[in-house]
Amino acid sequence: MNNFSATYTDQYQLAMAQVYFKKGQKDHSAIFDYYFRKLPFDGGYAVFAGLEDLLEVISNLRFDESDLEFLQSQGFEDEFLNYLKEFRFKGKIYSVAEGDIVFPTRPILQVEANIIEAQIIETILLNLLNFQTLVATKASRIRLVAGDATLLDFGLRRAQATGGYFATRAAIIGGFDATSNVIAAKNFNIPVSGTMAHSFVQSYDDELEAFRDFAQGRPEDCVLLVDTYNTLKSGVPNAITVAKELESRRQKLLAIRLDSGDLSYFAKESRKQLDAAGLDYVKIAASNQLDEYVIKSLLEQQAPIDIFGVGTNLVTGDPDGALDGVYKLACSNGKPRIKISESIFKVTLPHKKQVFRMKDESGKCIGADAIGLYHESTVEEMFHPFEPYKSMNLEKFNQEALLHKVMENGEILIDKRSLKEISDYSMTRLSELPIEYKRFNNPHIYKIGISETLRDEREKLIQASKQKLK
Amino acid sequence: MNNFSATYTDQYQLAMAQVYFKKGQKDHSAIFDYYFRKLPFDGGYAVFAGLEDLLEVISNLRFDESDLEFLQSQGFEDEFLNYLKEFRFKGKIYSVAEGDIVFPTRPILQVEANIIEAQIIETILLNLLNFQTLVATKASRIRLVAGDATLLDFGLRRAQATGGYFATRAAIIGGFDATSNVIAAKNFNIPVSGTMAHSFVQSYDDELEAFRDFAQGRPEDCVLLVDTYNTLKSGVPNAITVAKELESRRQKLLAIRLDSGDLSYFAKESRKQLDAAGLDYVKIAASNQLDEYVIKSLLEQQAPIDIFGVGTNLVTGDPDGALDGVYKLACSNGKPRIKISESIFKVTLPHKKQVFRMKDESGKCIGADAIGLYHESTVEEMFHPFEPYKSMNLEKFNQEALLHKVMENGEILIDKRSLKEISDYSMTRLSELPIEYKRFNNPHIYKIGISETLRDEREKLIQASKQKLK
Repeated sequence: MNNFSATYTDQYQLAMAQVYFKKGQKDHSAIFDYYFRKLPFDGGYAVFAGLEDLLEVISNLRFDESDLEFLQSQGFEDEFLNYLKEFRFKGKIYSVAEGDIVFPTRPILQVEANIIEAQIIETILLNLLNFQTLVATKASRIRLVAGDATLLDFGLRRAQATGGYFATRAAIIGGFDATSNVIAAKNFNIPVSGTMAHSFVQSYDDELEAFRDFAQGRPEDCVLLVDTYNTLKSGVPNAITVAKELESRRQKLLAIRLDSGDLSYFAKESRKQLDAAGLDYVKIAASNQLDEYVIKSLLEQQAPIDIFGVGTNLVTGDPDGALDGVYKLACSNGKPRIKISESIFKVTLPHKKQVFRMKDESGKCIGADAIGLYHESTVEEMFHPFEPYKSMNLEKFNQEALLHKVMENGEILIDKRSLKEISDYSMTRLSELPIEYKRFNNPHIYKIGISETLRDEREKLIQASKQKLK
Repeated sequence: MNNFSATYTDQYQLAMAQVYFKKGQKDHSAIFDYYFRKLPFDGGYAVFAGLEDLLEVISNLRFDESDLEFLQSQGFEDEFLNYLKEFRFKGKIYSVAEGDIVFPTRPILQVEANIIEAQIIETILLNLLNFQTLVATKASRIRLVAGDATLLDFGLRRAQATGGYFATRAAIIGGFDATSNVIAAKNFNIPVSGTMAHSFVQSYDDELEAFRDFAQGRPEDCVLLVDTYNTLKSGVPNAITVAKELESRRQKLLAIRLDSGDLSYFAKESRKQLDAAGLDYVKIAASNQLDEYVIKSLLEQQAPIDIFGVGTNLVTGDPDGALDGVYKLACSNGKPRIKISESIFKVTLPHKKQVFRMKDESGKCIGADAIGLYHESTVEEMFHPFEPYKSMNLEKFNQEALLHKVMENGEILIDKRSLKEISDYSMTRLSELPIEYKRFNNPHIYKIGISETLRDEREKLIQASKQKLK
């Protein structure tokens, strides 16, 4: 699932590349910024994910024989195809650390490469980063409300085809504990978890018999699904019988699972029945169309649920479905570039840049990132990107530079971390963010500003462009 | 991208399989129904897609050495792993033809296999069919409003990671003409299409120079993106200059593309400028957050747009993100099975079944599918699945059986069709559906009923289950 051809791209990248090639511009340098414009889920932050996958994919990106044959059949020219035969990405990438919290309109990642290489990787870069960042952010929001509960990814069956594979990875970065997805568990070294399906219970004439067989077959991590016929009259009583039988063999039922009906009510009634039978150690797992809002509500109602299985809404990043990340040219052949747009909010930022996070003495974020030129070591005063009279003095803050070189000459420079390490890092970073940015309704808006030099550079380019249109 | 391990499944499938194996039930037969409960996009129909991919994947599904090692590390037992080493799907599959229009709560596909094989393929079956059906339906809705306009899939960058690959396939089935996605175009034999990016224009000092180079590089299918600086003052005039230069070399500019601002206004103004310059053959392409509603509105405003590039909303199936398809046990070891639920609407249908589409003498759908037992050759009277007093006499209609055997002993029985053929078939089937089912607002509800025998069989099982709970 991690094997990508360089044809995993949009056709226009190759069309443009051929023109650059023919026009003698193949060695022109380019700098592109990756950023998004709008936070997903109307939230106050996003969790950046997908970087390690992307770097691995990029470092291995090649056109094979069949790719070149296909491109030839599409009218691409031999000389250009010979160039593609030798294609590999030899550029540099600067990036925020995977798992860090990120905000709109400021560079999360910068690509510095020749223009052809930089274009060819655009599509896969957007494809992998947009989606994993979306799902990691969703997972993080669910983790925020779920406290210490165990969170399981159950989404593969409703995922957008093989996108589910990457969704699982991102879910772990955002704070999930385990997944039902076997291939993702295997390849990404994620704890795997599962219970039983209704079909198992149905395949027996008798629920109790089904539970007994399942418990015998998997005594070490047995979770019984109790809602196939009638949760409180049949499922839970039968689970209690089996739990007692396990006790007589010095084994323990791990949990029961509720998958329908009013989860708060059924969890409370099931808990009562279990406790009355002396089974206070048996946990309650719940699933069925969960998301951060349902889980928050269940816990506010003090539903005694220990384990949440989350599927569709997690792995599809519902209700957003996509992060609007873009990849914009900031420099070409050494010259700073902007795109003027009908909307001022879409005007891009020229030049190679650095992003600084403002922190107070205790290490807490004060709620501002400043964008400067790459050679600036700090930003003394930051300006609102679109409202010229708004500015903020930053001299009293500690400034953390966020973009680090992660790839050079196409080689990965950073050590591989486990998903648990990335997830722990993400939690730490999130803990530095004040709670006002984490609430679901109207979260406080994190400030993004630009340095005076960057502002002036952009202004010069805007004026030059206006001049031309006269 | 078409290579799947049998570990592309949920862990509980293997957990249950091991229990079946240990309990001597590995050769027990099972029949599962695939269906969904709710139409996507609040629409009146769905387009079934993903079948050929699924059959190919299933016929090749195996556990390799590394899979078995991983499962061993997860505590699966040696005897069972030996069984998995020889695993291949040897069952039968009955299905509606790919591209047909389908409706909620009735079987679209039935799997008949031993219980272990039937469980192991569940996850990938749901994963591939749910998503492709979602996107093919979205594409079909867009095609319905777009008339003869050219429809291009531009979605890969915002797709849910590699899900975008399958989204492209489904988009073509639903009625799209071409894609920007090179690898999908190559592997699925889809026309590939692309234009140019803003970065290309920005990388030049001068827009006109950029247009000239691009047109020289790709004279045969040149589309110029005109909104980088100023659409009407700069982009379109420069495109006109280049079109005239192409004419002097007996070449033709194919189109201009608009990607921002008010598309209706800019299309009309651009058309005027192009026509005034004698370039009435130059087409206008538009992109930027399009979906069926935006395209419908643009065409109602008579925006002269010939080509629509649709991205995010198509490939993520926005706003739904997932089809709620399920896989439910209908027979186990020869015995009919149901799942009783807290909600009557979720009670499943027992037995191996057939689905009949009712048609009038002209071949038009009358808006009803009836579900009978598999051996019933027609359904004389169909009953509402949940409201016992509602029924409908079907004797006067032509009845078309929809489920056909497409796999036997794990071998594919149907001939591979091109996506164009599947798409044409889909269009034909859709043309048999009256317009009331196709409108976007409150579409007419297609009737689904069950035969008297099926109703009685289900009732017997419900009563037996109730009896047990007493």
